Amino acid sequence: MITSSSNSQMKYIMQLNKKAKTRYEQRVFVVEGIKMWQETPREQIQKIYVSESFLQDAKKRRLLKDCTYEVVADRVFQAVSDTKTPQGIFCLVKMPEYEMEDLLRGKAHLLILEDIQDPGNLGTMLRTGEGAGITGIIMSKGTVDIFHPKVIRSTMGSLFRVPFFIAENLSRTIGTIKEQGITVYAAHLKGVLSYDKPDYTGACGFLIGNEGNGLSAEIASLADTYIRIPMEGKVESLNAAMAAALLMYEVNRQRR
Amino acid sequence: MITSSSNSQMKYIMQLNKKAKTRYEQRVFVVEGIKMWQETPREQIQKIYVSESFLQDAKKRRLLKDCTYEVVADRVFQAVSDTKTPQGIFCLVKMPEYEMEDLLRGKAHLLILEDIQDPGNLGTMLRTGEGAGITGIIMSKGTVDIFHPKVIRSTMGSLFRVPFFIAENLSRTIGTIKEQGITVYAAHLKGVLSYDKPDYTGACGFLIGNEGNGLSAEIASLADTYIRIPMEGKVESLNAAMAAALLMYEVNRQRR
Repeated sequence: MITSSSNSQMKYIMQLNKKAKTRYEQRVFVVEGIKMWQETPREQIQKIYVSESFLQDAKKRRLLKDCTYEVVADRVFQAVSDTKTPQGIFCLVKMPEYEMEDLLRGKAHLLILEDIQDPGNLGTMLRTGEGAGITGIIMSKGTVDIFHPKVIRSTMGSLFRVPFFIAENLSRTIGTIKEQGITVYAAHLKGVLSYDKPDYTGACGFLIGNEGNGLSAEIASLADTYIRIPMEGKVESLNAAMAAALLMYEVNRQRR
Repeated sequence: MITSSSNSQMKYIMQLNKKAKTRYEQRVFVVEGIKMWQETPREQIQKIYVSESFLQDAKKRRLLKDCTYEVVADRVFQAVSDTKTPQGIFCLVKMPEYEMEDLLRGKAHLLILEDIQDPGNLGTMLRTGEGAGITGIIMSKGTVDIFHPKVIRSTMGSLFRVPFFIAENLSRTIGTIKEQGITVYAAHLKGVLSYDKPDYTGACGFLIGNEGNGLSAEIASLADTYIRIPMEGKVESLNAAMAAALLMYEVNRQRR
């Protein structure tokens, strides 16, 4: 049993939770909680850690059938955990790897994010995106890391099912997908066309900008069409994740 | 200038930020930040507090033209503020008061919430709701307080423009609005009708349940019609605020 938080494995886990750099160097990340662990494809799990009290709970212990795991003292588990009330299980998981072509299978339906900062927003966009049937999500390098513990939690497992691509150079990536015949839309203040007017039954993608600043002029200029989400009252803009949900589900509605 | 955080006014502000009970006893709450202060109707503002450095900034000082205010030492301001990087202004604001009839003006379009817990979810529902043109929002008593500092921030001002009603007894309130001819829909796992199929051009309302548990059986049973949001992949449910956005904007789309 691991009884000290200065144990090298525990220090490694804390490092992975804190630093995106370490995650990408090692190509692994930490998944915490029962639900997220169960959503993780078995072949990607490198190691499972459980707390003492998790193991003492017969019902929880049964979940571990056929698994090998290491036991961590409760006090240490609490110190290493990213959550306030840990569920007693976390695991080291190999990063999924995708090629751009994985995002373009079937009729492409892409979400393209520029510098989204809020982990909850990114996580919920992945979850809603899977629900709406997107084929992939493209993120600028400045977007919050998809393996950030809070992003992982708010995806509710969609992290493992929606192909994604982190663009070193977002402009160039958008250029590439446009060459493949994907029409790129941007929800933009300059848009006059309501978002439910275009025909989204062909391959399409939506540009969504940073929460505070919206899309940069450079990225917005790459859109084929500006669209707008009608707003009543004195609302100037919607939360980025809300706007994304409306656009993705409009595609879903048209394609049903 | 207020130079101590044990100053009685500062203690009062902290108390108001922390305790819903104090807010309702006094019928006041705290609004913080430049944008939210500017969105607050002047007649509701009881008192303005600014930090020293806010006042030293000529551009910011100009915003205070024609206002009376009290100055707070930066260190004290930081201690009292609900945010990590305060903008240097907060004010005491009188609670808006609504009657149920304020929510039913014109063709009713209501959002009805049972025990929503996340302040960001509630705030963003208000903001999206105003955008979608809802006529009001009804909340169960167990819903996070609408005057919680985090809710206020995430409403981006919609707090002051969307009439709301806190129901002592949500079942009874739903009964009352149904008697007034409002059709009540619930997004529910038992729903077979896709959410974009009903005709929402008549008076309508949507029941949205708690983030973890959904609607209680009692409240769900009051719905006239169960609807569902189609979901691809392995997604079992959407985030409550996302689901609400899709429903409210479907009404907006049909009424445009």
